[in-house]
Amino acid sequence: MSGKDEKLISLAHGAGGEKMEDFISEMILPALENDSGEISLSRLDDSSVLDDVVFTTDSHTVKPVFFPGGDLGSLAISGTINDLLALGGKPLGLSLAMVIPEGDSQKKIKELLTSAADTAEKAKVPITTGDTKVVEKDDIDEPIFTTSGIAKRHPLLDKNFESAGKRKTRWLSDDNLKDGDKIIVTGSLGDHGITVLSEREGYGFQGDVRSDVAPLHEVLESGLKVGGVASAKDPTRGGLANTLNEWGKKSSVGIEVEEEKIPVKEWVSSASEMLGIDPLSIGNEGKFVLSVESSKAEEVLEAVRATRNGKEAAIIGEVKEDIEGVVLRTEVGGKRILEMPVGDPVPRIC
Amino acid sequence: MSGKDEKLISLAHGAGGEKMEDFISEMILPALENDSGEISLSRLDDSSVLDDVVFTTDSHTVKPVFFPGGDLGSLAISGTINDLLALGGKPLGLSLAMVIPEGDSQKKIKELLTSAADTAEKAKVPITTGDTKVVEKDDIDEPIFTTSGIAKRHPLLDKNFESAGKRKTRWLSDDNLKDGDKIIVTGSLGDHGITVLSEREGYGFQGDVRSDVAPLHEVLESGLKVGGVASAKDPTRGGLANTLNEWGKKSSVGIEVEEEKIPVKEWVSSASEMLGIDPLSIGNEGKFVLSVESSKAEEVLEAVRATRNGKEAAIIGEVKEDIEGVVLRTEVGGKRILEMPVGDPVPRIC
Repeated sequence: MSGKDEKLISLAHGAGGEKMEDFISEMILPALENDSGEISLSRLDDSSVLDDVVFTTDSHTVKPVFFPGGDLGSLAISGTINDLLALGGKPLGLSLAMVIPEGDSQKKIKELLTSAADTAEKAKVPITTGDTKVVEKDDIDEPIFTTSGIAKRHPLLDKNFESAGKRKTRWLSDDNLKDGDKIIVTGSLGDHGITVLSEREGYGFQGDVRSDVAPLHEVLESGLKVGGVASAKDPTRGGLANTLNEWGKKSSVGIEVEEEKIPVKEWVSSASEMLGIDPLSIGNEGKFVLSVESSKAEEVLEAVRATRNGKEAAIIGEVKEDIEGVVLRTEVGGKRILEMPVGDPVPRIC
Repeated sequence: MSGKDEKLISLAHGAGGEKMEDFISEMILPALENDSGEISLSRLDDSSVLDDVVFTTDSHTVKPVFFPGGDLGSLAISGTINDLLALGGKPLGLSLAMVIPEGDSQKKIKELLTSAADTAEKAKVPITTGDTKVVEKDDIDEPIFTTSGIAKRHPLLDKNFESAGKRKTRWLSDDNLKDGDKIIVTGSLGDHGITVLSEREGYGFQGDVRSDVAPLHEVLESGLKVGGVASAKDPTRGGLANTLNEWGKKSSVGIEVEEEKIPVKEWVSSASEMLGIDPLSIGNEGKFVLSVESSKAEEVLEAVRATRNGKEAAIIGEVKEDIEGVVLRTEVGGKRILEMPVGDPVPRIC
């Protein structure tokens, strides 16, 4: 186990960028490869679909476990609900598996559990099954919550697709984008990542530093009711840069977005500048990026803005089949390529 | 977070015995309580059932991750498949969420993944969704695999219940036992727990020390084909003692088993004696306990014995409504109460 040429696991392998993509396609997919189901593992979408059951999982290792605006419990539940919604699922039930260090306070665990339960209740999704493991305190630093979820096909989805033109799949999948679609973000970017980082490192940034963690059932349903939504994705690890690059690659299209239209809060932007990281590569936990049939985009935007978690939504760009990759038009009139992030500039935020 | 009367989490809270039962009923259920679905969280069965979708989850923290007969990968997949089967599900798909320490060898992770994939393939269940998180090496000692699974109602289940008389549920649930049922174990007990313990502590016991970890689809289906199976449970944490006590309590019946009929391998029995632990309280990963309508028991036994993982199956006792708790008739003609284990005599084996 210790040959000198041996390849080791690095933090970047779990960071949601290019290195993770390589790791998954070189290591994980060849081992597990299977194409079972309508949306299979090998498609690496937010969830899988098998017999019209949407199914997803995530382990949550956020540190610290409590942060302004949320905690490990609300994060785990929101993340899983949002992954189900992102394919067009109507969440049916959730599981919660906890690994807890011996010696942690029961009060802390109860707070996390209560927060998980409150979040699930907000979204009206029951937690139906779970597991508890306790390990020695030297073996793990903080609790890990792994949540999985199942969903049925959303009843609004068929009607939504009637206004979306011809698409590759009948789910809100990563390969569904086409020329002319408008790109909508449902709120400001970077809030979650900067908040967790600030809390962990004790930076004390100025402003209402607060995570956006939330289940987005209302946001998504408002769009589906209007119709024309072709794809949805929650820009978690790797942020908007990762989402748009994955979409472009899987849909074989280019995407052009305008920097000045992308909502980024003042405190996120100044903190990012101070730290030398790009807010567009930072993970979010309460936002969707939507690709919407052009004729429906304004109406979807309006509907999303009318929801509690979508007030700052904006149309930020469009899909263009005649360009390559993801192009960011800067405020001063220039253009730059918005690259797939290599690693994660802000680790352990989800 | 450090008041002197503060209650702390202990290893026993995750150990599958009485302390864990208290922890779940005092801490977890009040926080999460919900009665959604046909088999809800509050029933604490092997899986939940919602809209005829069986759903389960487990985090696996076995240490060491490789042991004779299996590893973290085969264990995680087998455990989840068996939990789905235990309610009467026909597994549809699995998820695999990995938390890996930075600096682990890629070769090791690939071996674990390949083992997970091989096990899933053996049972013909695809792994359809997953997640990878990498954390700093000081923060976690070994990889943690969390698997969840979904299943549809097994097509053999309705016919099986036709020969089972009147039962509380139409699933193989913990509360389905009734007076006169025969109790079958599908093979020898304690193999897994003693193997992992021996490997971790370097005991070097004599004999073919080897875990029983395996997916039990053939074992269960052989019984369902015969019919009359009222309940199935995989005796993991807390072993047979935990399974029988949970069954007795939830079904409001007593259970009497005969010690000499319970299959325990020679090396398990001598190792247990040496360590002062009861093989009936040790976790297994490739066994079911079945409660079967009396008239069908011999035929079910024969069918189970004809499968690869059921060769050592035995009828070990029966359900008696006129006795209290779980009674073990000893080889010398005495009787003792087989108590619910308090903690786990062999920690971190699953």
